[in-house]
Amino acid sequence: MSVSTGESVFDWIDTRAGARAKAGLTRTVRPRAAHSTDLDLASNDYLGLTRDKRVTGAAAAAALRWGAGSTGSRLVTGSTELHTELEYELANFCGAQSALVFSSGYAANLGALMALSGPGTAIVADQHIHASLIDGTRLSKADVVVAGHCEVPRITHALATRGKRRALVVTDSVFSVDGDLAPLADLVATCREHEAALVVDDAHGLGVLGDGGRGAVHAAGLAKAPDVVTTVTLSKSLGAQGGAVLGPSRVIRHLIDTARTFIFDTGLAPASAAAALAALKVLREEPGLPERALTVAQDLAFRLRENGLPASTPSAAVVSVRAPSAESALEWSRACRAQGVLVGCFRPPSVPDQVSRLRLTARADLTEADVERAVRVITETGASAGAVSRPR
Amino acid sequence: MSVSTGESVFDWIDTRAGARAKAGLTRTVRPRAAHSTDLDLASNDYLGLTRDKRVTGAAAAAALRWGAGSTGSRLVTGSTELHTELEYELANFCGAQSALVFSSGYAANLGALMALSGPGTAIVADQHIHASLIDGTRLSKADVVVAGHCEVPRITHALATRGKRRALVVTDSVFSVDGDLAPLADLVATCREHEAALVVDDAHGLGVLGDGGRGAVHAAGLAKAPDVVTTVTLSKSLGAQGGAVLGPSRVIRHLIDTARTFIFDTGLAPASAAAALAALKVLREEPGLPERALTVAQDLAFRLRENGLPASTPSAAVVSVRAPSAESALEWSRACRAQGVLVGCFRPPSVPDQVSRLRLTARADLTEADVERAVRVITETGASAGAVSRPR
Repeated sequence: MSVSTGESVFDWIDTRAGARAKAGLTRTVRPRAAHSTDLDLASNDYLGLTRDKRVTGAAAAAALRWGAGSTGSRLVTGSTELHTELEYELANFCGAQSALVFSSGYAANLGALMALSGPGTAIVADQHIHASLIDGTRLSKADVVVAGHCEVPRITHALATRGKRRALVVTDSVFSVDGDLAPLADLVATCREHEAALVVDDAHGLGVLGDGGRGAVHAAGLAKAPDVVTTVTLSKSLGAQGGAVLGPSRVIRHLIDTARTFIFDTGLAPASAAAALAALKVLREEPGLPERALTVAQDLAFRLRENGLPASTPSAAVVSVRAPSAESALEWSRACRAQGVLVGCFRPPSVPDQVSRLRLTARADLTEADVERAVRVITETGASAGAVSRPR
Repeated sequence: MSVSTGESVFDWIDTRAGARAKAGLTRTVRPRAAHSTDLDLASNDYLGLTRDKRVTGAAAAAALRWGAGSTGSRLVTGSTELHTELEYELANFCGAQSALVFSSGYAANLGALMALSGPGTAIVADQHIHASLIDGTRLSKADVVVAGHCEVPRITHALATRGKRRALVVTDSVFSVDGDLAPLADLVATCREHEAALVVDDAHGLGVLGDGGRGAVHAAGLAKAPDVVTTVTLSKSLGAQGGAVLGPSRVIRHLIDTARTFIFDTGLAPASAAAALAALKVLREEPGLPERALTVAQDLAFRLRENGLPASTPSAAVVSVRAPSAESALEWSRACRAQGVLVGCFRPPSVPDQVSRLRLTARADLTEADVERAVRVITETGASAGAVSRPR
């Protein structure tokens, strides 16, 4: 009765592990301590609110008042008045008609794409969209066209030749690895010309771009658009955990009825919902924070380029610096860490173009001395890693 | 240049909404207050730990000490020493070699199935697996065979006829809607005979089944098996938020390197990690809690059946009671709510067999008076809903 297979799942795991080790692509979990003197240029805590006492205090109070978990699906017992308040305030802050909170930005993207498309739909996607959007397009059963990176003519062509199908265009607002911006105005224009809906992941835009941090979609004047759906995360600028979909009320009602990652997932923990709410309050009280994060990013990038490093010109709080290879990127980031500066190291398959790089994130609470220290360490270690293209 | 499509995404949303309203399948979010006199038989808080002061206190302290969010991917800045401690203790408690924490059980299932399979793999799945496992099989690009519900001969046949491909068998341990158990011993036997790996979602088993709540996989003697991978949630018996994969260390290392929902998602919030850790400590201190939840479930079901209601015979903390139709299930659950008893109402598409039912969950902290009140209200309202098959 027993069959002889070519390879078991576990043998295959070992084969794959060997191949990754050979290619220098093994990943390591490095748990951090609660307090550290390291300079963090690797997190997505763009406004430094994760540790803000107003935000942590709200999280702690909510855990005590509401419980440590939400206890069930948002449709059963997992919706508290805190979730409703957060949804109201998120929509209000961002200028959208309605909002719906998910347990993560990943879940929000999967849920939105699955619910808004299906076998009768054409999805036209930017090549550099986040992994969660890619997985959402895969789960949607729609026909997916990947139309280059920020190439509006290719997107237009795909829409114009799709036949009589419903269509969605899917993009990040700020692309996560390099921090470059999507051409939202051009995208919405072509969507309208071709009767397509536009889905924008504003995970790295909320809290950084737009009036007072209202995000890239708000900045483009599209927050209340009847044909634009925005997804955001609560775990970056808002310093908490979770995600949300913002858009027309009929879209939100549709998601409540059909989004699998809303219906079949446990609701967001009350502490995270309260933290995100508190962060939105901070943003209203300190509308200059987002610009501070942007200024720090631009300053950091300018000084790195001055030192001969191939740093991007940041449009948001992300600076990317290209590395000669996956191995040197890893070596470089390790050398920074050894000197107390934490930077992100992005290697395949986390980079859409197979080019490894350091990913640096600015924070509104970085000081002039922090930036100086970062530039010095990254430049010195970059010289050893072969990344400096010309001497200073 | 503009094309005329048959229907825009938004027109289609309206069409779908109309069809759902006609079928009585519109869903409503009902936010709950922080404190209520309602009797909760709808949450998955099986041990009543969500509100336990040891658990909420740990969550609050962690938010203050570690911050409200984890700030990044588990592979960048999103792993704290708290995550490592939780992974160590989860593996230790459940008797597994290693564990890896995700931001939700949904994410754990997607990540595990995507990482452990692929185009070269055959997945044989139980028909009633959770939505997150279904989505995982869809994302895996494997060939998927759905082999009935708990039908080991059909699973065996699918394995025996799969050819030379790697194979995974995928099941829940406790099926979420009815609370019935998978035949784990038979499943692992056929997996071993046919060189397949077994993936078990123990979301509703952890904290309820097995020695001191160590789960269904531990109860089946498979916690340390080299060919079994278990997924769990931290948001049910453990009263927090999040999920985890437990299994052989080489599987966990493989997930660290390749699981998309681990690599591309923000790490679990420190408050949730600390709450789950505290709940595991409570379970060690009070090993009788799980049995108490089971006893309450059995008592509840017995009394409902005595009253002529078609209640299941619970093997875990879930009792399901079949309703004549989707409409009557909704009416019945609303009538219970009006009398202060919260029950789950499962209707298509949340039920695998299209049969609507009430889903009642037992909790270790329900009193004798709570159970009496629940039985009285559910029976009285069930009579009006046409669900009582014989007079008392």
